[in-house]
Amino acid sequence: MTIRIAIDAMGGDHGPHVTVPAALAFLRQHPDAEVILVGRQEAVESELRKAGGSPARARVVHAPEVVAMDEPPASALRGKRESSMRRAIDLVKSGDAHCCVSAGNTGALMAMARFVLKTLPGIERPAIASTMPTQRGHTLMLDLGANVNCTAEQLLQFAVMGAALASVVDGVERPSVGLLNIGEEDIKGNEVVKSAGELLRASELNFAGNVEGDDIYKGTTDVVVCDGFVGNVALKTSEGLARMLAAYLREEFTRNPFRRLAAFVALPVIKAFKDRVDPRRYNGASLLGLRGTVVKSHGSADSVSFANAIRRAYDEARSELPRLIGSRFSSQGAGDADSETDGQAA
Amino acid sequence: MTIRIAIDAMGGDHGPHVTVPAALAFLRQHPDAEVILVGRQEAVESELRKAGGSPARARVVHAPEVVAMDEPPASALRGKRESSMRRAIDLVKSGDAHCCVSAGNTGALMAMARFVLKTLPGIERPAIASTMPTQRGHTLMLDLGANVNCTAEQLLQFAVMGAALASVVDGVERPSVGLLNIGEEDIKGNEVVKSAGELLRASELNFAGNVEGDDIYKGTTDVVVCDGFVGNVALKTSEGLARMLAAYLREEFTRNPFRRLAAFVALPVIKAFKDRVDPRRYNGASLLGLRGTVVKSHGSADSVSFANAIRRAYDEARSELPRLIGSRFSSQGAGDADSETDGQAA
Repeated sequence: MTIRIAIDAMGGDHGPHVTVPAALAFLRQHPDAEVILVGRQEAVESELRKAGGSPARARVVHAPEVVAMDEPPASALRGKRESSMRRAIDLVKSGDAHCCVSAGNTGALMAMARFVLKTLPGIERPAIASTMPTQRGHTLMLDLGANVNCTAEQLLQFAVMGAALASVVDGVERPSVGLLNIGEEDIKGNEVVKSAGELLRASELNFAGNVEGDDIYKGTTDVVVCDGFVGNVALKTSEGLARMLAAYLREEFTRNPFRRLAAFVALPVIKAFKDRVDPRRYNGASLLGLRGTVVKSHGSADSVSFANAIRRAYDEARSELPRLIGSRFSSQGAGDADSETDGQAA
Repeated sequence: MTIRIAIDAMGGDHGPHVTVPAALAFLRQHPDAEVILVGRQEAVESELRKAGGSPARARVVHAPEVVAMDEPPASALRGKRESSMRRAIDLVKSGDAHCCVSAGNTGALMAMARFVLKTLPGIERPAIASTMPTQRGHTLMLDLGANVNCTAEQLLQFAVMGAALASVVDGVERPSVGLLNIGEEDIKGNEVVKSAGELLRASELNFAGNVEGDDIYKGTTDVVVCDGFVGNVALKTSEGLARMLAAYLREEFTRNPFRRLAAFVALPVIKAFKDRVDPRRYNGASLLGLRGTVVKSHGSADSVSFANAIRRAYDEARSELPRLIGSRFSSQGAGDADSETDGQAA
């Protein structure tokens, strides 16, 4: 089966300059894939020409508008129906594409995806999931910022969706799920987290109990579940710490001529280290819980990084992740939240 | 003025083996300080003998019991009145000591400190604050886990206490205060954080607005305020990431003989880097909002690290931090919560 991927070619800090070469590089590695590059025709075609012409498996769909990176989601939702982001999502809705990828404005992407695709039966709110490197390999964490106030039921839904994603993307049969909590015995978690723990224990998931912040990078569980406020803070704090440590390392290695010499000798090691923690490897956050596959790339992604986000969308679409998630909810008899959810999304 | 510091000599993973040498090292550097080593007399005196005898500025107060690291705070509070932790706090209450330091069970320390010392007028709940390294220097963050559910008013109180601590410990006149939040424009924070932002804007503090997780390590503001759940996750996540990166670096530098040689050449640089991010430098979390100074050391602290926690207590006691915090609350006319608070603490 050919997987068709709609790409918001205008999204992100660099637009077609990154998205087009990334799409072509991706196509070379995936002979069973096609891409639909959505964006301003002349801009996209100019990048295609620079890259040596348009392959048969890439076509361009014109979209005159672009969603700005700082545009309020509500205004993008109302005013940017002709945007590359919206048209890429529309292509998933119409069945012309199996999935879409955008490096654009996260809030706008989430709002449009919810409005156009709707959530799956049984899922109140979609969540954002991403892969984090760990000492053992990697772990999936969600929600990373889509939902600031979550109920215990929503945390359970995130757990089900995260486990489904881990099983299709990483091939783990019964992924272990940890609930992010804090360590002080007296005050273990707030009420929502405590109730979520009870729901998770009663579920069919492979629930490993509470985990703490350091368990994320230990790789204690395959999936880590938390509300979007906590998840976003953990993610951004990690980015900040990694940048600080990289800056310190650079400063220490350039402090004097001897140290520069040491840096030269240590260069292959430092390179191996950097490759291993390269955030580009982990680019591509999944918007889970929708009736379609949508992947968000980091806005500042380069073409290597953006190609990884395309691959994530391709993997999810090939394994029909939304259908899998939907089946887990209907088997749990949780389909009753459907109509309410659609109302919220619109 | 001589500063007398009560030390829970039995607390932490290593007890007197670490606390006694740390106290003696601290005394050598601070001729105007005295320490009261609280714990099992024979254990403490044996460590004093090993260290070459008891100086005039160190005395021992016997306490027969020890609070276990995993003991539930409520049980420690009820049952361990003869413990080294409790007696150290009692010495602050009675005025025999100006401050106390413990590497013991955080929950028990907080519960005992609240019960014995009570909170300051206007402060509903104490918070735990600690110094974090940043690209520019360091920043103070609170709450790190004492309060999992905070109101907007409590976040404001944390901000006032954090600013007071930053001004006395770091000598910043009007410390800038950031409110930890998440970046998605549409959904900027939950209701509590939004209301806290309004209270902070209306306060006399130097409020710099919302900050995100990466701002902690950028050092964007002198103080970062958040609820204890989020703060604890951010702290533990950082610890986990730092450990993972250190493990990766170690693995890459020992992968083959050439790399081991490179590590040898790079050794001074790696040492300088490690010294710079050495968590021992930042040991010593302040329990703020109490009618007395209490500092919590990391349980696994070695003597260098524990001496830093003693220094933190000494600095706070010398600058009469609790009095300063109290005066800021009474000047804000927030003293009305006093009686209610004491009721809660007891």
